[in-house]
Amino acid sequence: MNDIKWTKAEKNIAKEAFEMAYQRECQNIINDIKKYKLEQPEDIWSLSEMLQEREKEINNMYDYRYSQLIIVFGILIKRGFLKIDELAGLSDDKIKQIKKIRSL
Amino acid sequence: MNDIKWTKAEKNIAKEAFEMAYQRECQNIINDIKKYKLEQPEDIWSLSEMLQEREKEINNMYDYRYSQLIIVFGILIKRGFLKIDELAGLSDDKIKQIKKIRSL
Repeated sequence: MNDIKWTKAEKNIAKEAFEMAYQRECQNIINDIKKYKLEQPEDIWSLSEMLQEREKEINNMYDYRYSQLIIVFGILIKRGFLKIDELAGLSDDKIKQIKKIRSL
Repeated sequence: MNDIKWTKAEKNIAKEAFEMAYQRECQNIINDIKKYKLEQPEDIWSLSEMLQEREKEINNMYDYRYSQLIIVFGILIKRGFLKIDELAGLSDDKIKQIKKIRSL
């Protein structure tokens, strides 16, 4: 997938979709924090652990290299942070590959 | 301070005070989390960092070795998580040393 070419228009679509998914995922974490049961000391450390895990996950996932974007988008759609329609404007072969990854 | 002797009654007072301070400090963190401004993605990572720092601080501070307790209590009182009156029942020399550390 390293030799896929991205036009300038596609790069703009990708950038916007990537940023949108990131914002949604972070909003999802914010909601989780707000709903978190915080009563006992151990609840604090469990929240802290959860945040560290989510941070690691996010750092692994949000890899904005054009060689990775097809996979990243496939996973983000599968995880519900992006819709395939929000990538409208990408070439048919890219959409096809993203759908393939989504369905894994 | 390693050769200070703790009677059984003093150990009970110390244990209770230590646990009380820990509960208060954790309640303080819980309040901080609940008041935390959580709007942007970076707020999540800043909360996560804050929690990791507090966890480190707490792990360093709450050292329940009898050789350390005088210092620990002095600092906990200085930081407002314990009152000197809550250590009533400890020997006069212990109270004197704790007050000395509190005043540093």
